[in-house]
Amino acid sequence: MSKFVTIPPDTLTRLSQDLFVGAGMPAADAATLAEALIWANLRGVDSHGISRVPWYADMIRKGVLNPKPKLSVRKETGATVSIEADRASGPVAMRFAVGHAVRKAREAGAGFALVAGTTHTAALGFYARDIARQGCAALIAAASVPIMPYHGSAASSVSTSPFCIAVPRRQTEPLVLDIATSVISFGKLMLMKKAGKPLEPGWAIDAAGAPTTDPAAAVMPLPLGGPKGAGLSLMIECLASLLADNPILTKVLDGTDTVHRQNALILALDIAAFVDLEVFKTNVDQLAAAIKATPLAAGFAEILMPGERGDRETEVRRRTGIPMPAADFADFRRVATQLGVTVPESF
Amino acid sequence: MSKFVTIPPDTLTRLSQDLFVGAGMPAADAATLAEALIWANLRGVDSHGISRVPWYADMIRKGVLNPKPKLSVRKETGATVSIEADRASGPVAMRFAVGHAVRKAREAGAGFALVAGTTHTAALGFYARDIARQGCAALIAAASVPIMPYHGSAASSVSTSPFCIAVPRRQTEPLVLDIATSVISFGKLMLMKKAGKPLEPGWAIDAAGAPTTDPAAAVMPLPLGGPKGAGLSLMIECLASLLADNPILTKVLDGTDTVHRQNALILALDIAAFVDLEVFKTNVDQLAAAIKATPLAAGFAEILMPGERGDRETEVRRRTGIPMPAADFADFRRVATQLGVTVPESF
Repeated sequence: MSKFVTIPPDTLTRLSQDLFVGAGMPAADAATLAEALIWANLRGVDSHGISRVPWYADMIRKGVLNPKPKLSVRKETGATVSIEADRASGPVAMRFAVGHAVRKAREAGAGFALVAGTTHTAALGFYARDIARQGCAALIAAASVPIMPYHGSAASSVSTSPFCIAVPRRQTEPLVLDIATSVISFGKLMLMKKAGKPLEPGWAIDAAGAPTTDPAAAVMPLPLGGPKGAGLSLMIECLASLLADNPILTKVLDGTDTVHRQNALILALDIAAFVDLEVFKTNVDQLAAAIKATPLAAGFAEILMPGERGDRETEVRRRTGIPMPAADFADFRRVATQLGVTVPESF
Repeated sequence: MSKFVTIPPDTLTRLSQDLFVGAGMPAADAATLAEALIWANLRGVDSHGISRVPWYADMIRKGVLNPKPKLSVRKETGATVSIEADRASGPVAMRFAVGHAVRKAREAGAGFALVAGTTHTAALGFYARDIARQGCAALIAAASVPIMPYHGSAASSVSTSPFCIAVPRRQTEPLVLDIATSVISFGKLMLMKKAGKPLEPGWAIDAAGAPTTDPAAAVMPLPLGGPKGAGLSLMIECLASLLADNPILTKVLDGTDTVHRQNALILALDIAAFVDLEVFKTNVDQLAAAIKATPLAAGFAEILMPGERGDRETEVRRRTGIPMPAADFADFRRVATQLGVTVPESF
């Protein structure tokens, strides 16, 4: 048996959707969740892709993720919407919130949506790209449970809170910057632990809070730039969680809450409220071209824009399929079978 | 002669204000600019303080900084304002823009202001704290001329675009995170070059694009986390400059513009549009306390919140005065004298 199973993206999307329907989700929501996960795989961000399916199924079984959430608007002003996600999966709640943020942006120039009480937000770029394709600029951030030490702390005290900024351009897919506030994302750390790959110095610490490059000992990624990444993660908790009156970090740190949940914020800016949309897109193209034309640093063959590597990988994987580690595929197949979905042994 | 001259903050503020009036600014604008610069000195951020005065005076003399700008609102929607700064000094334009952003936030829940064509934005924390004190959360970013290599580039291709997030709390001054997208700020690099202090590996490159720790050879700071800081700086240019149809990087890189200018964006969120303001402030206090209570990493005596070090330094310097390198003081005194302001030789 090969170490990887390679699956056509459409097949994998359909199987995942069927699996989530089997777990109790309505067909449209299951499709949204499957699409968001496979989008990450297509881009090569396997940490946020299909390998999460058994975990999602487990969260549904335990009642942490609500497969039939009642999404609702708690509060609304001219430019803002506060959404109660009712423990929905991230993609289902975020797609709902994106619709509201873009609607507000159309009405008021800027739209700001708070999303309280999702489970796992999934890859932020998926939503930001969607907003950019609608002629808006997007800024998205997500708050989660502690999995990273704050600067100066030896313990898990903040999240690796990712944030994402996207703008449309004319010649290609939108520019999408999607980054964690840690040196490496928690998902990537978990993948490296699984693969037994040694870490670079400065990436992670062990359970005692000491720096380590041993993947077996590493338990937490370090914040990007020490106080900078740690501070940014803290401020994202303030904006996404405390504005929604749904604190995550404080409650986990003081032991009053142990259930996994996340919050998120979305800012959409209607570009046409500021400048002609086509002028803007052309300006983004010109900016990208000007930077790509600068002299290369030693060791670089070209300069890449935010999201460009993922766009290229998507083209490749659409043709060649999504490679899944055999162990992950076996997990996926086992969970699917339990939920009444038949998955072939090979493709 | 001592290597430092220490000056009482109020005296330094008054002298700076007089100097800017001598250079042609209205008294109120001169006071705003002096206040913003001395605010940075008080916090220990000397790179953004009074050492900039000769440079500001020079920009006025050369017509780069307009001492009597006509600030105007170019475009307005329910939640947004686009401001033409007419080459105003940063603090004058930003204070005007903060007023509009907070007004919009009160009306629509969120207020977004674009500020096109300032000169030097000065320390973002000054404006963000002001917004936070008015019961809003603030996010501010500034775009400027290329002074940092984009990831993979050997040449100056993006700015060290700073950004800042602030929220109010109950017990103390607001939490204010104010960071550059570079490993170290350009101002700090300049100060270290002046002082001949060796740099740490990974901080900067020389004119040929090669890594260096020699302060004499270093010309550019490196982006924070490589592609992360570089990408963030690029996206700030897209949001602050391209949304305002006032591209900076493209025009400098293609040689069509050589005049120093900056743009900025301000997002203000009216906290009361989401949650009771006092509940929010208390939640921020509790979050800070919970993180401070986690076990300390080796080598740390305590955990500091964003802005806390600067708040403490402010208390000290209000009492003991602001230390200025003797050479900087001599420059300041020379420029002041030229503009008809008498500065004592000692304090």
